[in-house]
Amino acid sequence: MEIAPAILNSGAKVIDLSGAFRLATVENYRRWYREDHTQPKLLEEAAYGLPEFCRSRIPGARLIANPGCYPTAANLAIRPLVEAGAVAREHGIVCDAKSGVSGAGRKPSLKTSFCEVTENFSVYSLLDHRHVPEVLRSSGLEESEFSFSAQLIPIDRGILETIYFRASEGITSVEDLMAIYGKRYAEEPFVRLYGRGQVPDVHAVARTNFCDIGLRFDPNSRRAVVVSVIDNLVKGAAGQAVQNLNLALGLPETTGLL
Amino acid sequence: MEIAPAILNSGAKVIDLSGAFRLATVENYRRWYREDHTQPKLLEEAAYGLPEFCRSRIPGARLIANPGCYPTAANLAIRPLVEAGAVAREHGIVCDAKSGVSGAGRKPSLKTSFCEVTENFSVYSLLDHRHVPEVLRSSGLEESEFSFSAQLIPIDRGILETIYFRASEGITSVEDLMAIYGKRYAEEPFVRLYGRGQVPDVHAVARTNFCDIGLRFDPNSRRAVVVSVIDNLVKGAAGQAVQNLNLALGLPETTGLL
Amino acid sequence: MEIAPAILNSGAKVIDLSGAFRLATVENYRRWYREDHTQPKLLEEAAYGLPEFCRSRIPGARLIANPGCYPTAANLAIRPLVEAGAVAREHGIVCDAKSGVSGAGRKPSLKTSFCEVTENFSVYSLLDHRHVPEVLRSSGLEESEFSFSAQLIPIDRGILETIYFRASEGITSVEDLMAIYGKRYAEEPFVRLYGRGQVPDVHAVARTNFCDIGLRFDPNSRRAVVVSVIDNLVKGAAGQAVQNLNLALGLPETTGLL
Amino acid sequence: MEIAPAILNSGAKVIDLSGAFRLATVENYRRWYREDHTQPKLLEEAAYGLPEFCRSRIPGARLIANPGCYPTAANLAIRPLVEAGAVAREHGIVCDAKSGVSGAGRKPSLKTSFCEVTENFSVYSLLDHRHVPEVLRSSGLEESEFSFSAQLIPIDRGILETIYFRASEGITSVEDLMAIYGKRYAEEPFVRLYGRGQVPDVHAVARTNFCDIGLRFDPNSRRAVVVSVIDNLVKGAAGQAVQNLNLALGLPETTGLL
Repeated sequence: MEIAPAILNSGAKVIDLSGAFRLATVENYRRWYREDHTQPKLLEEAAYGLPEFCRSRIPGARLIANPGCYPTAANLAIRPLVEAGAVAREHGIVCDAKSGVSGAGRKPSLKTSFCEVTENFSVYSLLDHRHVPEVLRSSGLEESEFSFSAQLIPIDRGILETIYFRASEGITSVEDLMAIYGKRYAEEPFVRLYGRGQVPDVHAVARTNFCDIGLRFDPNSRRAVVVSVIDNLVKGAAGQAVQNLNLALGLPETTGLL
Repeated sequence: MEIAPAILNSGAKVIDLSGAFRLATVENYRRWYREDHTQPKLLEEAAYGLPEFCRSRIPGARLIANPGCYPTAANLAIRPLVEAGAVAREHGIVCDAKSGVSGAGRKPSLKTSFCEVTENFSVYSLLDHRHVPEVLRSSGLEESEFSFSAQLIPIDRGILETIYFRASEGITSVEDLMAIYGKRYAEEPFVRLYGRGQVPDVHAVARTNFCDIGLRFDPNSRRAVVVSVIDNLVKGAAGQAVQNLNLALGLPETTGLL
Repeated sequence: MEIAPAILNSGAKVIDLSGAFRLATVENYRRWYREDHTQPKLLEEAAYGLPEFCRSRIPGARLIANPGCYPTAANLAIRPLVEAGAVAREHGIVCDAKSGVSGAGRKPSLKTSFCEVTENFSVYSLLDHRHVPEVLRSSGLEESEFSFSAQLIPIDRGILETIYFRASEGITSVEDLMAIYGKRYAEEPFVRLYGRGQVPDVHAVARTNFCDIGLRFDPNSRRAVVVSVIDNLVKGAAGQAVQNLNLALGLPETTGLL
Repeated sequence: MEIAPAILNSGAKVIDLSGAFRLATVENYRRWYREDHTQPKLLEEAAYGLPEFCRSRIPGARLIANPGCYPTAANLAIRPLVEAGAVAREHGIVCDAKSGVSGAGRKPSLKTSFCEVTENFSVYSLLDHRHVPEVLRSSGLEESEFSFSAQLIPIDRGILETIYFRASEGITSVEDLMAIYGKRYAEEPFVRLYGRGQVPDVHAVARTNFCDIGLRFDPNSRRAVVVSVIDNLVKGAAGQAVQNLNLALGLPETTGLL
């Protein structure tokens, strides 16, 4: 938030990995980040850098807000369904998110020390994580419809989100849901869809820029569960930044990425 | 299922740690365990050994079905709420369950080999785990109301379940929910309740017979999240068996347990 | 070093878990701890609290220096052999020591943060660890005869030391070495010896006050390897302190210990 | 051993990752692998594929024996010193070797199951590992001079070997030892040497074909310790096989390798 203006003034583009420019309004920023936003015009100007949904705005942008790790995995799973009207939103969506320890940053703290984490599993945010408004903004969900928890897995890297909802009446089979994803992501180089009965694990995407998605559906009750995984350090951070860099510079989008 | 009759005929009591005698009917057993039940009369006779809810039946029982690990943590969290009418059941309940690897048994398999598990997190059952009917039977929920997933944490022992629901209209604060638990478990030696804003982690119960419960509530939308943890090898298995043994033999219920 | 005098003046006994009173001389302390010793008289007075070798001095001591974790495992393995003349000291002894992360203390640091430790193994001290003089003092070895390395295992607790030496000419079989240990430790409640071809692992002593010892010997070349394990938080720290407390208070030595 | 002849007869070259063709004689093979060798002529013909020492023989070889993981790390550290006469061999060399679990292969077994390995550290071979004769053959050491142990680290991949010896009289400083390595490996693309006081850890080489080497020396007693690390799945297996493949096909030796 403080450094970007000087860089932009020098004529360079900025791809920002902090949370400074991801939300739509200063009010929203103040609520979730608990501090005032000092660059309201840049906040308005910034392009949200989730290429699968905002690709067209990125080449022309001076300031690109690289998405948070949790919202990347969440929005790639949720937004196509919301856009297609496949979610019975009155029942809400639950996103139970789990992350490896690198998601907490490199600064030493008791919470991320080895002896606290090993052989443990803990919940560190329920309903009020600062990534929630990013999901709401991008997916179009209301806060009252979206329950999010952030939890710590004793691993170095990787995010797995288990997403629960009731499908709307038009959805009668798992193929209906798979078709929505299939159509939406047919041309995407970094989203991989799993076949019927298959869901990804963290190993599947470790050290890659992929987001892998699989799901399960019970046609009787229309309960659905989607599993979305990314490597929080790649598609959830530096890899997606390179993807945005490629778009910003007019390079092939997959340059330098696995 | 095959050994219990002989033991019972010898005059001994049986506390069964398998899943053979946990469900109410042979039909239900066939559906979830995918085999015929060979002891229908014993199935009918068996007492379900969740002492916090079935204590009175255990002293007189010949055959006690020790609950599954997941249902123990789930029912201790869910049943008081359902009984108190605190859950808006039309929106469903989600139970996102995670377990350490010892829950899969000691038999070597690729899925539980070190290199597959370390630095990984995976989902191994969505909606159709055989522990689901145990939760339904004990909590009184309908299958269509209950979404359950089973996931593997790269740790030796411990279960954490994150449970999401919409509270019914009468619930207006987190204290309302805490009061339900507080009243229900006031005299229970092995259930510990956490204060406002506190939730347990796996370390909190490792190598003990405790079930620890904490929760969070958003009064605006009435979204609630409950976190329930146990050690799957103690309260989820051998420890609860000892608790049942104590009840069956008329010993103090906490004998030999931490 | 600074607090002990006041406690002793109050009439209480001190069992010190720091390294302040473990060495024989202020010169030695200055060299290995790189600071001056401020209580030279107490240093002289202190009893070294390795009960298996110093038991007689402990009941009458005001100040007991609880041994370091590495020296506990090392001396219990090495000292009986040196005392029996079983080591060809001209060839030296190697002690390759590995410890869990709790050995580094609870203060957060980058070196003990989860992401640095998981899936890693590292050497943090070669030849110059401050526990070396404790081993020399207790075992009677010369510094030039003893090579020690300290290494970090990605586990919470536990120490395993692999100790290599050439046996002296009188030793012709593994039984000869086992007999030395067997005789020395016949009455010891917290030292367990393994049979021919068996060596302990860290799990064997986790959460106990035991030191487990196993070995291997090649009669042709008289090369010997001894494996010694303890839990660094129990026999290597608090457990041994309780053992010393029991001795100091005239209680049975095993009181309160597993 | 059984498949190689048919492949060779078809005209293809073989780079063998098994232990079938690594030793010099059928007698040696029988002793360490406890079975008869069925292809004595091929055993004689095979080239040992440690490029840093056997590079010249590889391009013309039909059958290349890819070295074992432990011997690769051991020989790269030991052989230059032995060749330079820097080791006082009468005192022996100790190689305390530790490996990640993938070194045990992918076949499920209780020993490599998660719950047995996590929070543990164990010794699985003392003095008699079948990789010992590979080290002897390549380094020129006698069996009576070389003590080797194989131990299991609770990590997926990586080997760290801590090697202890007394330097011969001509060695008077750590620089003398570093100069031997520096000269020997000046042109090697996959061996990296560490500066004074620095030793590598497992993370340093994970997922690369490098062998990293660092050391420490006490000039007073001439005790020396060398730390050698590789990724057992890359330089210790498939990566070295690619390195040999490149040499066999006349490609640049680093093709396809990090």
